[in-house]
Amino acid sequence: MKLSEIGEFGLIDLLTRDLVYDRSRVIVGAGDDAAVLKPDGDRWLLFTTDMMVEGVHFSFDYCSAEQVGKKALAVNVSDIAAMGGRPGHAVVSVALRPDLAVEKLNELYLGLKEAAREYGINIVGGDTVHSPERLVINVALLGDVAAGRAVYRTGARPGDGVYVTGSLGAAAAGLYLYTHPDTACSTGAAAHCRGAHSEPVARLAAGQTLAGCGISAMDDISDGLASEMHEICGASGTGCRIRAVDVPVDDRVREVAAVAGLDPLHWALFGGEDFELVFTAAPAAGDTVREALLQIGVTVYRVGEITPAEEGLLLDAEDGIKPLLRGGYDHFNI
Amino acid sequence: MKLSEIGEFGLIDLLTRDLVYDRSRVIVGAGDDAAVLKPDGDRWLLFTTDMMVEGVHFSFDYCSAEQVGKKALAVNVSDIAAMGGRPGHAVVSVALRPDLAVEKLNELYLGLKEAAREYGINIVGGDTVHSPERLVINVALLGDVAAGRAVYRTGARPGDGVYVTGSLGAAAAGLYLYTHPDTACSTGAAAHCRGAHSEPVARLAAGQTLAGCGISAMDDISDGLASEMHEICGASGTGCRIRAVDVPVDDRVREVAAVAGLDPLHWALFGGEDFELVFTAAPAAGDTVREALLQIGVTVYRVGEITPAEEGLLLDAEDGIKPLLRGGYDHFNI
Repeated sequence: MKLSEIGEFGLIDLLTRDLVYDRSRVIVGAGDDAAVLKPDGDRWLLFTTDMMVEGVHFSFDYCSAEQVGKKALAVNVSDIAAMGGRPGHAVVSVALRPDLAVEKLNELYLGLKEAAREYGINIVGGDTVHSPERLVINVALLGDVAAGRAVYRTGARPGDGVYVTGSLGAAAAGLYLYTHPDTACSTGAAAHCRGAHSEPVARLAAGQTLAGCGISAMDDISDGLASEMHEICGASGTGCRIRAVDVPVDDRVREVAAVAGLDPLHWALFGGEDFELVFTAAPAAGDTVREALLQIGVTVYRVGEITPAEEGLLLDAEDGIKPLLRGGYDHFNI
Repeated sequence: MKLSEIGEFGLIDLLTRDLVYDRSRVIVGAGDDAAVLKPDGDRWLLFTTDMMVEGVHFSFDYCSAEQVGKKALAVNVSDIAAMGGRPGHAVVSVALRPDLAVEKLNELYLGLKEAAREYGINIVGGDTVHSPERLVINVALLGDVAAGRAVYRTGARPGDGVYVTGSLGAAAAGLYLYTHPDTACSTGAAAHCRGAHSEPVARLAAGQTLAGCGISAMDDISDGLASEMHEICGASGTGCRIRAVDVPVDDRVREVAAVAGLDPLHWALFGGEDFELVFTAAPAAGDTVREALLQIGVTVYRVGEITPAEEGLLLDAEDGIKPLLRGGYDHFNI
């Protein structure tokens, strides 16, 4: 059935079922002018938003509607994770093509609801509007964190180590495979990289654990490690030196890069959408951090250190030391 | 300058100036992964969102970018007003055409910031992404209300009066004038109606005042009075009877309708976007409400009453009593 046949109000009825995960914090969910929520008075609120446009951030040619729904929520959860917080309530706006099948939209919402359950989020409202050409989905997510315990981008200090919570570049390799379907790599490598692109997982437990370890700064890797280092160093007033040889890249990503004739390090530094966390910590905190993350099954990699601002942002690569270019995904120059 | 020349990061720098209105409630605003906010522990949170698509909800052919920015915020404030609450913090996502002039985007943000100041809102974050054809803007707005004092759609009871906070149909008349520029009406009528469409004002003070008067249900008129009555009666399990002769329609709207050869009541009932409030109150509360609103300069109009569900939703018109059709703006059947 096409959206143009079911109409807006039928659609809203269809989509507003089973949205609330934890009733105890929701006085009124979707269905009134605004949701009514009980705050936890001792905690600070976290508030973030992300928009995804069909054909720009995702394509139904290679992602299922369910994956798009899950990803729309996961990218927001990743922002809350990067503050060390816990997600709470989301509102979801979708601009819909009239030729979109209702079944597809239903799948999108199944993905949203599944991710909401996984991350413990209530979907408490939204908006559905018309869009002539493309589906656009916007999620705004409210979370919270113990007062005084949020981790900002501003706290990095010279001498701190720079760490990431997992290997990088798989999401970019996955996007490459989706857009170059004839690439002759192994099934295992293809599945790993495609999955990293279409079903990213936000590092929620790691973010919360790290917030309890006295780390100095944190960011999620949405635009590539290099871009996030520019964010952290810019906000903290520091430089950094990243060692290329220490940037973790999975063998399956290396395989895809080899077949494609590309440099896997480029994907790891500039690819983005890996949604691992990058954080900085004083040398003394290094072991605590490593052990705390190990307890929750997360391996941490030290990729470099924070330096004084005047040293700039550097990449220590095989062919010498050079400036670490921002180089991340620029949404207006693609 | 075109957006494609300035790039995403230059753009974000440009847009994230002067966003915060009340620093005391914002620990961190735009610029980190998520905003960090101090909740007022005794109050309940309100959370709402609205999305606007270029060419569907607005057009730069007849709205300035500043007006679009103001409206994007005002329509969300209207939802908070309809709960009896006060707005607090907003996150703003925009999907931008690369051929959009930076000056136009700057104007859009000036409009957002101006509306934010008027309504006492902090803009604490957002997302800017690429959209090939159309500008899309999404605002998610967080507000609060004294615990237990939110006004829902569910509380209308048979015997309650139905009231609106101002005259209806001007926004629809304005849209008609924008899309039929040759309509030969007076300058005064044209300015009034066009302004109602392109610069709607949310009834924030009225909503807060009404929440203190013990009214039974409230909604903002975004989709037309008829559609909102379906919302209230559906949520409350009641019927209603609206008297056509009592629906307030400004003389300037009547003038435009006469020139256009259309029925002004149609605009008032089904036109939408007037952003007045419709509410229900027990007969005993009528005088209190009227006086409280008069104190803040708002005239209230009684347009009908709530009836038992089995009587249905009726329109008492010149040519007899008939069903009050929903008839609101259906975003997928336009």
